[in-house]
Amino acid sequence: MIRGKLITFEGIDGCGKSTQLALLEKHLSDRGASFVITREPGGTELGRKIRSALLEGSDGSVEPLAELLLYEADRAQHVRQLILPALESGTHVLSDRFYDATTVYQGTARGFDPDLIRHLNMLATGGLKPDLTLLFDLDVEIGLARTRARSGSDASPHAKPDRLDREPVEFHRRVRKAYLDLARHEPDRIRIIPSHGTVEETFELMIAAVDLALG
Amino acid sequence: MIRGKLITFEGIDGCGKSTQLALLEKHLSDRGASFVITREPGGTELGRKIRSALLEGSDGSVEPLAELLLYEADRAQHVRQLILPALESGTHVLSDRFYDATTVYQGTARGFDPDLIRHLNMLATGGLKPDLTLLFDLDVEIGLARTRARSGSDASPHAKPDRLDREPVEFHRRVRKAYLDLARHEPDRIRIIPSHGTVEETFELMIAAVDLALG
Repeated sequence: MIRGKLITFEGIDGCGKSTQLALLEKHLSDRGASFVITREPGGTELGRKIRSALLEGSDGSVEPLAELLLYEADRAQHVRQLILPALESGTHVLSDRFYDATTVYQGTARGFDPDLIRHLNMLATGGLKPDLTLLFDLDVEIGLARTRARSGSDASPHAKPDRLDREPVEFHRRVRKAYLDLARHEPDRIRIIPSHGTVEETFELMIAAVDLALG
Repeated sequence: MIRGKLITFEGIDGCGKSTQLALLEKHLSDRGASFVITREPGGTELGRKIRSALLEGSDGSVEPLAELLLYEADRAQHVRQLILPALESGTHVLSDRFYDATTVYQGTARGFDPDLIRHLNMLATGGLKPDLTLLFDLDVEIGLARTRARSGSDASPHAKPDRLDREPVEFHRRVRKAYLDLARHEPDRIRIIPSHGTVEETFELMIAAVDLALG
């Protein structure tokens, strides 16, 4: 039995990762690959309750530390109940966000100590790392325009700027910079996918990276 | 402004702490004290969502680590949104369970590393300690008989033995022992209230300790 690969999808809100994940689903089905698509928060039954509590609390009623611990509780359940069993049975796992999102959003944007985030991420994942992380990168102005144009049905609890962030552009700019810093520190794991082009252009860039990882 | 006191209520399920807390409410109202009664998990709006997720997951569908992180998320919110503001405004806070319950149930009964629990408790509380902890102590057989006699409406997510605990008596015995160990290590904070007598007898013992703490 060959172990499955874990591929995670990251980037600022409006970066197009959800669209690309849907296209990838079709591509992998056509290839006959065995895979499961999931997300954080909300990849498990417990996680969906946590996601809904986080979304309802995105008006600022959830304390930042409670929020951080909820993301990690979601992750602890997700890794043990869904991701690890899938990988061990030879199924690839594609996750819309994973621990890099916590590092970036709760760490950089909320101002938590990076060591605390690292410690909690390590605890929740039990040391599991993605085989490949795709970072969909583009100018925050383009991302924000895309977010405004679409419906709120796929709202992410990450997307909401902090109460302190009066200027959403500034918030997203810090998030983008934090993601790019992560990619610079782990170039082997994190692959930047420039996403300012058309959906088709971004898709081609993504597919090249994914096909290489899945072999 | 005199800061309020934090008094927490601990013990095995069926120890009578909820009954005693209700009696104490009347006693303190008669004295004209300013106080609030709360509990963990579930002392805040977010906490009530967490409590319900924990209760629904008490069939074993919640991973122990996710469970631990959910208790700490509940606590982080509870301390910052309810307990600290109340204490700072001069209001006493009486909480049905606090971090000792995590030390005992998630630590001893679930087998987590005591240092991990201590670290997470410290993180969630920001270092806040109760001024007084009342440990209602009695034989587990009596506690279990009381639990069986009452309705399930006040079910606690703590009460459910682990799947591994085929024998509830053994589970509750380990919990009791862990509570008594804590009391031995912090005799100034944790006051053991022998609870094998009548409700009135236990009440008198509790009131003596509470009146002393509230001055």
